[in-house]
Amino acid sequence: MSKWIYAFGDGKAEGSAAMRELLGGKGANLAEMAGLGLPVPPGFTITTEVCTHFTANENNYPDGMNAELTAAMTAIEGIMQAKFGDAENPLLVSVRSGARASMPGMMDTVLNLGLNDVTVAGLAKRSGDERFAYDSYRRFIQMYGDVVLGVDHHLFEDLLEDMKEDRDVYLDTDLSPDDWKRLVEQYLAMVEENLGRPFPQDPTEQLWGAIGAVFGSWMNARARTYRRLHGIPAAWGTAVNVQAMVFGNMGQDCATGVCFTRNPSTGDNYFYGEYLVNAQGEDVVAGIRTPQPLTEAEKAEQGTDLPSMEQVMPELFKELDGVRDKLERHYKDMQDMEFTIQQGRLWMLQTRNGKRTAKASLKIACDMVDEGLLTRTEAIQRVDPAQLDQLLHPTLDPDADRDIIGHGLPSSPGAAAGKIVFTAEDAEIWVERGEDVILVRTETSPEDIHGMHVAMGILTTRGGMTSHAAVVARGMGTPCVSGAGDLRVDYENKKLMALGQEYAEGEVLTIDGSTGQVMLGEVPTLRPEMTGDFGRLMGWVDEVRVLGVRANAETPADAETARKFGAEGIGLSRTEHMFFEPERIVHMRGMILATSERARRAALDKLLPYQRQDFLDLFKIMEGLPVTIRLLDPPLNEFLPHTLEEMEEIASAAGIDVSQVKARKLELDESNPMLGHRGCRLGITYPEIYEMQARAIFEAAAAMIADGKSVVPEVMIPLIVDRPEFDMLKQVVDDAAAAVEKEKGVELSYLVGTMIELPRACLRADAIAETAEFFSFGTNDLTQTTFGFSRDDAAPFLEVYHDKGVMPVDPFMTIDVEGVGELVRMGCEKGRKVRPDIKLGICGEHGGDPDSVRFCHEIGLTYVSCSPFRVPIARLAAAQAAIDGGSEQSVENR
Amino acid sequence: MSKWIYAFGDGKAEGSAAMRELLGGKGANLAEMAGLGLPVPPGFTITTEVCTHFTANENNYPDGMNAELTAAMTAIEGIMQAKFGDAENPLLVSVRSGARASMPGMMDTVLNLGLNDVTVAGLAKRSGDERFAYDSYRRFIQMYGDVVLGVDHHLFEDLLEDMKEDRDVYLDTDLSPDDWKRLVEQYLAMVEENLGRPFPQDPTEQLWGAIGAVFGSWMNARARTYRRLHGIPAAWGTAVNVQAMVFGNMGQDCATGVCFTRNPSTGDNYFYGEYLVNAQGEDVVAGIRTPQPLTEAEKAEQGTDLPSMEQVMPELFKELDGVRDKLERHYKDMQDMEFTIQQGRLWMLQTRNGKRTAKASLKIACDMVDEGLLTRTEAIQRVDPAQLDQLLHPTLDPDADRDIIGHGLPSSPGAAAGKIVFTAEDAEIWVERGEDVILVRTETSPEDIHGMHVAMGILTTRGGMTSHAAVVARGMGTPCVSGAGDLRVDYENKKLMALGQEYAEGEVLTIDGSTGQVMLGEVPTLRPEMTGDFGRLMGWVDEVRVLGVRANAETPADAETARKFGAEGIGLSRTEHMFFEPERIVHMRGMILATSERARRAALDKLLPYQRQDFLDLFKIMEGLPVTIRLLDPPLNEFLPHTLEEMEEIASAAGIDVSQVKARKLELDESNPMLGHRGCRLGITYPEIYEMQARAIFEAAAAMIADGKSVVPEVMIPLIVDRPEFDMLKQVVDDAAAAVEKEKGVELSYLVGTMIELPRACLRADAIAETAEFFSFGTNDLTQTTFGFSRDDAAPFLEVYHDKGVMPVDPFMTIDVEGVGELVRMGCEKGRKVRPDIKLGICGEHGGDPDSVRFCHEIGLTYVSCSPFRVPIARLAAAQAAIDGGSEQSVENR
Repeated sequence: MSKWIYAFGDGKAEGSAAMRELLGGKGANLAEMAGLGLPVPPGFTITTEVCTHFTANENNYPDGMNAELTAAMTAIEGIMQAKFGDAENPLLVSVRSGARASMPGMMDTVLNLGLNDVTVAGLAKRSGDERFAYDSYRRFIQMYGDVVLGVDHHLFEDLLEDMKEDRDVYLDTDLSPDDWKRLVEQYLAMVEENLGRPFPQDPTEQLWGAIGAVFGSWMNARARTYRRLHGIPAAWGTAVNVQAMVFGNMGQDCATGVCFTRNPSTGDNYFYGEYLVNAQGEDVVAGIRTPQPLTEAEKAEQGTDLPSMEQVMPELFKELDGVRDKLERHYKDMQDMEFTIQQGRLWMLQTRNGKRTAKASLKIACDMVDEGLLTRTEAIQRVDPAQLDQLLHPTLDPDADRDIIGHGLPSSPGAAAGKIVFTAEDAEIWVERGEDVILVRTETSPEDIHGMHVAMGILTTRGGMTSHAAVVARGMGTPCVSGAGDLRVDYENKKLMALGQEYAEGEVLTIDGSTGQVMLGEVPTLRPEMTGDFGRLMGWVDEVRVLGVRANAETPADAETARKFGAEGIGLSRTEHMFFEPERIVHMRGMILATSERARRAALDKLLPYQRQDFLDLFKIMEGLPVTIRLLDPPLNEFLPHTLEEMEEIASAAGIDVSQVKARKLELDESNPMLGHRGCRLGITYPEIYEMQARAIFEAAAAMIADGKSVVPEVMIPLIVDRPEFDMLKQVVDDAAAAVEKEKGVELSYLVGTMIELPRACLRADAIAETAEFFSFGTNDLTQTTFGFSRDDAAPFLEVYHDKGVMPVDPFMTIDVEGVGELVRMGCEKGRKVRPDIKLGICGEHGGDPDSVRFCHEIGLTYVSCSPFRVPIARLAAAQAAIDGGSEQSVENR
Repeated sequence: MSKWIYAFGDGKAEGSAAMRELLGGKGANLAEMAGLGLPVPPGFTITTEVCTHFTANENNYPDGMNAELTAAMTAIEGIMQAKFGDAENPLLVSVRSGARASMPGMMDTVLNLGLNDVTVAGLAKRSGDERFAYDSYRRFIQMYGDVVLGVDHHLFEDLLEDMKEDRDVYLDTDLSPDDWKRLVEQYLAMVEENLGRPFPQDPTEQLWGAIGAVFGSWMNARARTYRRLHGIPAAWGTAVNVQAMVFGNMGQDCATGVCFTRNPSTGDNYFYGEYLVNAQGEDVVAGIRTPQPLTEAEKAEQGTDLPSMEQVMPELFKELDGVRDKLERHYKDMQDMEFTIQQGRLWMLQTRNGKRTAKASLKIACDMVDEGLLTRTEAIQRVDPAQLDQLLHPTLDPDADRDIIGHGLPSSPGAAAGKIVFTAEDAEIWVERGEDVILVRTETSPEDIHGMHVAMGILTTRGGMTSHAAVVARGMGTPCVSGAGDLRVDYENKKLMALGQEYAEGEVLTIDGSTGQVMLGEVPTLRPEMTGDFGRLMGWVDEVRVLGVRANAETPADAETARKFGAEGIGLSRTEHMFFEPERIVHMRGMILATSERARRAALDKLLPYQRQDFLDLFKIMEGLPVTIRLLDPPLNEFLPHTLEEMEEIASAAGIDVSQVKARKLELDESNPMLGHRGCRLGITYPEIYEMQARAIFEAAAAMIADGKSVVPEVMIPLIVDRPEFDMLKQVVDDAAAAVEKEKGVELSYLVGTMIELPRACLRADAIAETAEFFSFGTNDLTQTTFGFSRDDAAPFLEVYHDKGVMPVDPFMTIDVEGVGELVRMGCEKGRKVRPDIKLGICGEHGGDPDSVRFCHEIGLTYVSCSPFRVPIARLAAAQAAIDGGSEQSVENR
C-alpha cells in the first residue's frame, strides 16, 4: 500500500532531500533540515502521487489518506503542545504547494489556517496581542476566501480601504484591534452573501478545502502556461506541505531574520545577517524598519547603534550559530537561511545555497578546500562559470548613481565611459587627441574595425548578440551594448536620440556591456582583480578538464590576451579582419576590381607580405601551440566602400572610371549575402586568393622553423558543403606548401581541415572527413541556417518568441541541442567513423557559453574556441562538465 | 582461371548486353548484336579486369592473356578470310576503348592497325585504290604515332600542310596517290627522328602497343578529370575492343549510312535514313556530299533526284530492312543504326535507342503497344518526362532564322515574342492598347505581378532558376528567361544593352524559355498540339502511378490550367500573391503601417472579403479536391513601395507623414530577408493576420457547404522550426474555424499542417507531427538553408561550380538526394513514427522535376505539387518511378 504523507519535525523526518520527486522541492528540503535535528516547525508533506491521483480521479483522494492526515495532524499537535481548533491553545498551520521544480508564485498558499471565531480569541490570549490575533484572522479569511472559496480578492481590499478611509488612516498598522474585529465581521458577512453559505468555521473542513485548492491550482491556467514556458511536464504534479505556523511578531521575545553563513560579497568566513525583534519575515525585507546586525563584529563594522542579536539574545544567537555550522557542513556550501523566534524559541524556516559575487564565490570555494570541507573537484563545482565574467572586466561601481537612457543587449561584458562619436574615422581622430570615446552606430561593419579598436566601448541600435559589433567587440574584450532599439542614430546631424532627448557628438555616455544599460555621463567603474583565488581555482580546473580551450583571435593584442587567459592555441583566426587597414584595403580593393586573373594576382602579391607578417606575429605569440587560420570568408562587397567620395578615391587609385567601381559594387550586391558568394565559394572562383593566403601562412611557418621555433598551422577552409569543394581547395593549399618547402628548403607540418557550418556539411561529414584532417563546427552560421534565422535580423522576432514562450532560450547564446546540436553530433559521428582520430572543435560564439561547453564535452569534441575574454569561463565549464560526466582527471591526489 | 577475352562475330558472341561491367558499353553492345546473328565485323573485347590488373601491376598483363589474344586474332582472320600482316590480303583492325559508362572522346582509339610498308601494297591491290591505301596508312601512322608513341600530332599536321602548300592544293582529296606515298615516307622518317627508332612494322607489336596505350589512357589526366566530373570510380576500368576494319570507301560497291527504324521527328512507322556510296562514316555527317535517301518513299517525300538505296542496292536494302526489324523487336525501341557496305557486304557498326521529338516519342510508344511490341508499362517507360514540356508550350519554328543577342537560364518553358517594356505599369498600359509585350527587368518582385500577368514573356538579367521571376512565370505558364547576365538594363533611359548595341522600349524581342535564348525581332512559333497519343499515354500513366500530383496555384487561371493538366488538387496556394492588386495593396500597406493591433485589425477587416472570394474561387474550381492554403509568408517589406512618389501616395492615403512610411520601411529592412521576419514568425508577432486569413478560408468553405458542395481546406503554416510555434498558430486557426462554425451553423472539415522547409523542422519532425496533420516539404527554402545558397545570389558561383565540376547538377533543379533529400527522408520517418497516417507532400520546384519526383516516390510521399504546366511531367515521372520500384498498379489486365 502506498504511503501518502511524510511527516517531519522534532528532529526527525520520514523524508529527505533525495525525495524531491515525491515530496517536491520545499517538502524535501524541510524534511532534510528536520532530519538533521534542526528546529523546523513540525509538519508533513502530502506527496505528488496524491496530486496525480487527485487530477486523474475528478478531485478525489486515494484511500487511506484521510487516516494518514489525521495521524499527521495529531503528531504536529503533540510536538507543538497545541490543538487544532482548540479554544485556549489553538494550533495554526500553513498549507503550501511545492513542486519538483521551482514555480515561484505560480500556485496557491494559505496561512493561519485553523482560525475561527472561537480560536481567534485563544490566539489573542496566548499572544497577549488582540490586534495581532484579529489581523491574522482577517488575513486568513481573505486568503482562504480568495484561494479556496473563489471570492474576488478586490471585494476584501475594498472593505479594507473603506475602513481606512472611514478611520482616516493611511497605514494598516494604524487600525485598532476593534477596527480589525469589525473588519473580520464585515469579511465574514461579505463571504456569506457572496457564496450563499457561511465561511467554514470547522478547522478540519478548512484544512481539506485548502489541500484541495492547492492540488487544484496545479492545473490552473497560470500554472499551465508557466509549465509550457519552462518545459515542466504536467504529470509531475505538486506536493502539499502542511506545517505549524510560528510567529516572530508575538512580542519582545519574538524575532525574525535572514543570515548568510559567510559574507556573500567578499566571501569572508564570518556570520553575516540581520534581524528584527517582534516582526514578521516580510518586515525585514520591506525596509520599513531598519534591521539590526546579527553579530557584534558586524555592528562595529557598520558603525551602528542598533543592538546585535549576539548581544540581545546571546543564548538564541549561540543556537543559531550552531545551526549555521551544522548546515554549512551538511550542504558543504555557503547557506542563506531564514529563522523566526517565537516566544524565546528558535525555528528554522528555510535554508538554501546563498547567492554571492564572483569574488566571494572563488574565495569561499578555495577557503572550503583549505578547511577540508570540500575536495578540489567539489570546489570547482561551486563556482558559476558565467559569473567569472565579472572578474575579467571593469564593472560599474554598484554604489554610483546611474542616469539610464536606454537598454540593449549585453553583447560584450564590461563597463566603459567616453564621448559619443558616430564614425570610425571620428573615433580615431578623437582618440589621437587624447579623448576616450564610445563609438555609436546603427550597426557596425568590417570597415569600422579601426574605430572599434580605439573606442572604449561600442553601442549599436540594431543587431543581436552575434551581430558584427557584438562578435568583434567580444573578440577585442571591448564593452559593447548592441541592438539598443529605443535609441536612434541620426548620422546626418550627428545626434543620438533617446527618451525624446537628443545627445550630440562629444557628450559623455557610459555603457555596461554586462547588463545592456546605457547611461548619461560618466559612471565610476571598478577595475578587475585577478586574485590569488582565481589563479588557484583555475589551476585545479585545468587539471580536471578533458576538453581543450582555444581562443578566436586575429590581432597580436587578442592573441596575447588569449594566452594570458590560458588559451591552448588559436581555434579561429579570421583572415579577413587583416585586410581593413588603409595600406592593405587599397590592394584588396584593387584585387576585387581586377578584371583578369593576372591583375588579381598582381594585387594579391602586394597583400602577401602583410599577411605573412600577420601570421608570423600570431605564430610567435602562440609558439608551441596550434593556430587555426580560416581562409577568406566574407563576400567581397564588404571590402568595397559605401560613399561616392571613397569610390572616386579608389577609382583614381586603380586608374579606372568611378562608374566601373559602381558597376562592380552593384554586381557584387546580394539579396542574402549570408547565403551568397562567400567562404570557399570565393576560393573556388578565385583560387589565387587562397593560394596567396596559403603561401603567406607557409612562408611565415618557414620563418619560424628557420628561427628554430615550432609551429603547426591548421589551415581551415570555410563554408564547405561537400568533399569536391574541399578537395579542390586542399590541393591549392598543398601545392602552396610544396612550393614553399622547395623554395625555403624546410619541411612543414600542417593540417588542412574545414569549418562545418552548414547543415549539408554535417550530413556529408563522412565524405568530407575522407580528406579533411579536422573539423571546426561554426555554430553561428550553423544556427542561422538550421533555424533559418539571420543573426542580424532575428532580434525583433526572437524577442517576441521569448516573450510569448515560443523559444525561451536564444539559440545564438546557448547551443540548440535538439536541432543544431543534433547536426553537430551527427557531424562528429560521421567524421569519426571515417577518420577515428579526427580533431573536432567548435569556434562559434557558443564556445564561450557554459551550457554549450558542457554539450561540447558530452559529445567528445577535442576543443572549444571562444573570445579571449571567455577563455576562463570555458575552462571552468569544461572542468565542471568533466566532473559531472565522471571523466575528470583526478586532481585530489596530486 | 579468369577469362580475359570475349570474342564476337559470325553470328555468335561470348558476351552479351548484360555484361556491361566486364565488357564496357561498346563491347557488350557489339556482342549483343553479334549474338543476334547480325553481320557485325568480328572482333573481341579485352575485359575491364585486365585494365585493373594492368593499372595495379605497372602496366603488365595477366598470365594467359597472350594465348587468348592470339586465338582471338586467329578467329577474326578465319571469319574475314584475311590474315593479320599478310602481304596479299592483310587483315586490319581497330583498337578502341569502351568503359562501363560512356566517356565520349575521353580515351584513345587507333584505326587501320596492321598496315605497314608491305601490307599497304596488299590493301592497294585488293581495293584497287592506291590512293585509299596510302591515305589509310598515313592516317594510321599519325594516330598510332600520336596515341601510342607520343609524337606530337602537330608534327604530322605540319608535314601535311607543307605538302598541300607545295602541291598548291586546298583539299586533302586533291592530293595524288604519289603525294600520299611521299607523305608516308616523310611521316616514317619524322617518327624515327623523333623517337630514335623506326616506326614499328610488326603488326603484332603494333597491336600490343595500341592495347597498352588504350589501357594507359584510362589513367590520363583528361579521363581522370572527366571521371571526377561525372562521379565515375577509377576502379571500374575500361575494356579494349579489337575489331576487324571494314571500309565503305573501297569503290562503288561500297557505302555507308545512318538510319532510324522509325521517323524520329513524327514517330511514323517507316524506315528513315540516308547513305552515301563509296564513302566513310564521317562523310555522311560532315555534309560535304549530299546524302541520298534510303527508301523510295523518302525520295518521293523529299522530291530529290538522288537515287535511293532501295533502288540502287535492292538486295542489301532488303537485308538492312531485316536488320531494322530484328533490332527493333529485340530492343523494343526505335533504333538509331550505323552500317557500312564493303564490296557488296553489309556490316552493322552500331545500334542504339534513337533520339526523338516528344511527339514522336508518344506516337512510337502508343504504336508499339498497338503492334503488341510493348506492354503499356513498357510504353510508359519509353517516354522522357522532361521532353513532354515541348508539347505543352509554344515552340520556336525550328526552320526560322534566329538573331541571338543573349543567353540566360531556361526558367519557364515556351517561346514568346513582344515589344520590350521595362516596368510592370508600362506592360499593363501597352497591353491595354493591344500590344504584345516582353517584360524586361533586372529582376522581378511581387509588385511586378500585374505586369507579369499580362506580358507574353519575361526576361531578367539577374536571378536563377528559382528566382522570383522564374517561379512566378512557371506558375503562370509564361515563358521566361532569367539571369541573362550578358544583357544589361538601363531603367533611366529605358534601354536594353546587348552585344554593345542598345535596344529601346518598343523594339521586338523573342525569348525561348526552353533554351534560354534571347533573339531580336519576332521569330515564328508553333502552337502546342495535345494529340490523342498524349491523352492515351497519360491515361495509362494515371492508372499506374501511386504518387499523387497536385499543382501550385493561386489564381483561378492557374487553378483551371492545373485541373486541365490533371492535377489532383492544389498543393500550394501562396496567399501573398493575392495582396498585390491595387485595391488590396492599399489595405495591406495600411496594415503594415498600423501602430496598434486595433488599427491592424481594421485594415485586415477590409482585406477579408477579397481573400474570402479568392478562396471561394479556388474551392469552386477544385471542387471535390483538396486545396492547401499557405498563410502569409514573405517579409512585410515586400509589400511596401520603393519610390518616393508611391510612398507619398500611401502616406496621404493612411493620413500619416511620408517620413513615417520611410521609417517603417527602414525598420523592416533586413540584411538577409530570406532568414528574416517572415513565415510563421509574422503569425506569432501579428496573430491577427493569420486569424483573418483563417477566417476567410473558413467563411469560403462555409459558403461552399451552403451550396451543397464539398471542400476540405488544408491550412498550412510556413517556416516552422518546432512544435511550440505550430501549436500557437494552430490554435489561432482552430479558433477561427470554431467561430465560423458557430456563426454559420455548419460543420467544417479541415486539416492544419505545416511546411517543412528548414533543416531544424526536419530534425524536429517527430515533435511537430504530434499536432501537425500534414507536412509539405518546401524544398526551395530547404535547399537554400541546407546548402547555405541564396537562390537569388547563387547563379554566379553555381555556374563556376558547374564548370569546374564541383557540383554538376543544380540542386535547385533536381533535389540533392545526399543532403536535402536526407533531411526530407528524416522528416518523413520522424513524422510517420509519431503519426503513421500523416499526409506527406512536396511543394518546392522539385515537384515538377522527373528525377526529384522519382525520389519522392521512393521515400513514399503522398503527393508532389508543381507548377500547372509541369503536372503532366510529374504524372509521367511518378508512373515511371512506380514501375521501376515494382509498386505500380497493374494496367495490363484492364
